[in-house]
Amino acid sequence: MDLLIENVQRVVTLNALKVELFKKFWEVRDLKKGEYLLYQGQVCRYDAFVLSGSLKGYFVNPTSYKEEVAFFAIEDWWATDLDSFHNMLPSMLNIQALEKTQVLQITKERFETLLCELPELERYFRVILQSYANALLKRIYLRNAISAKERYTKFLEQYPTINQKIPQYMIASYLGMSAEMLSKIRSGSA
Amino acid sequence: MDLLIENVQRVVTLNALKVELFKKFWEVRDLKKGEYLLYQGQVCRYDAFVLSGSLKGYFVNPTSYKEEVAFFAIEDWWATDLDSFHNMLPSMLNIQALEKTQVLQITKERFETLLCELPELERYFRVILQSYANALLKRIYLRNAISAKERYTKFLEQYPTINQKIPQYMIASYLGMSAEMLSKIRSGSA
Repeated sequence: MDLLIENVQRVVTLNALKVELFKKFWEVRDLKKGEYLLYQGQVCRYDAFVLSGSLKGYFVNPTSYKEEVAFFAIEDWWATDLDSFHNMLPSMLNIQALEKTQVLQITKERFETLLCELPELERYFRVILQSYANALLKRIYLRNAISAKERYTKFLEQYPTINQKIPQYMIASYLGMSAEMLSKIRSGSA
Repeated sequence: MDLLIENVQRVVTLNALKVELFKKFWEVRDLKKGEYLLYQGQVCRYDAFVLSGSLKGYFVNPTSYKEEVAFFAIEDWWATDLDSFHNMLPSMLNIQALEKTQVLQITKERFETLLCELPELERYFRVILQSYANALLKRIYLRNAISAKERYTKFLEQYPTINQKIPQYMIASYLGMSAEMLSKIRSGSA
């Protein structure tokens, strides 16, 4: 729980009373390696913050039936299908634990109550979403602007720990390149 | 101005006094066709809301020197480089008017004052950013999941008016396909 509180306090200040109130809204959930936080087609009932471990958000390509990685969520990050959570729509994503993982989760109803009781959190979530939207926009244009090799280098900078943990084909999918291309880059032949 | 106020009131309620206060923070800016709201490399000094007309956000690909379209902003939408505006960093984007365009703009300093004076706007911007982040995420995975033809069909649904106004090569760039492919789709031969 401390990790989430620190994350929030980086943006807004909560006094001790408010921190106690804040804590009551969240429940801890433990996931085994391979366990699903969300299945594609289900409504995403929880917003989740990663305390430890890591998850991937992915969908199955309806044409090729291949898995396509939309995001990785590691410690101190959020793992949610925003559209599904906020609009109660079927999710386009699966979210699955890549290893033993612990998250804090909150339902939509409780999320709305939390924001009513601690309206200063609107600012926190606004700032978080700003960074997130910005990261997504960067990803869209970097995909066009820089080479596969540079994209991989940037990925290693952004996710230094995840590279060891997960199969290369998932990283290739996330980076929008073939597994063969990634293998060439890693071996230094591309 | 009314268009922005209606947009805000869809999310949060402002009474007449607050509406008057809100109005004071914005200035109208008129752009001619081809005029720039922002140049790549400059710090984005204004957040801007489009009252009429349309703009494109684009960058010049450092490898191919080709123009790559990151977004289109039409009436009732926002047109900003978020990262540059909020973190005072050089922008990765150019934002240019595609036609005679009118925007409402606000500086970062005034934006922060506005949020202090009307903190209920934190919620408005949080909700706007949620939709925006979601649209970006969808764009990332639709690019992998659906065919070029379907992407173009979805584009026409999303931007019914813009298709008439702008050169096809810009639409192709936005959709991540070649101009030749788009031309085939439009002629019905793809």
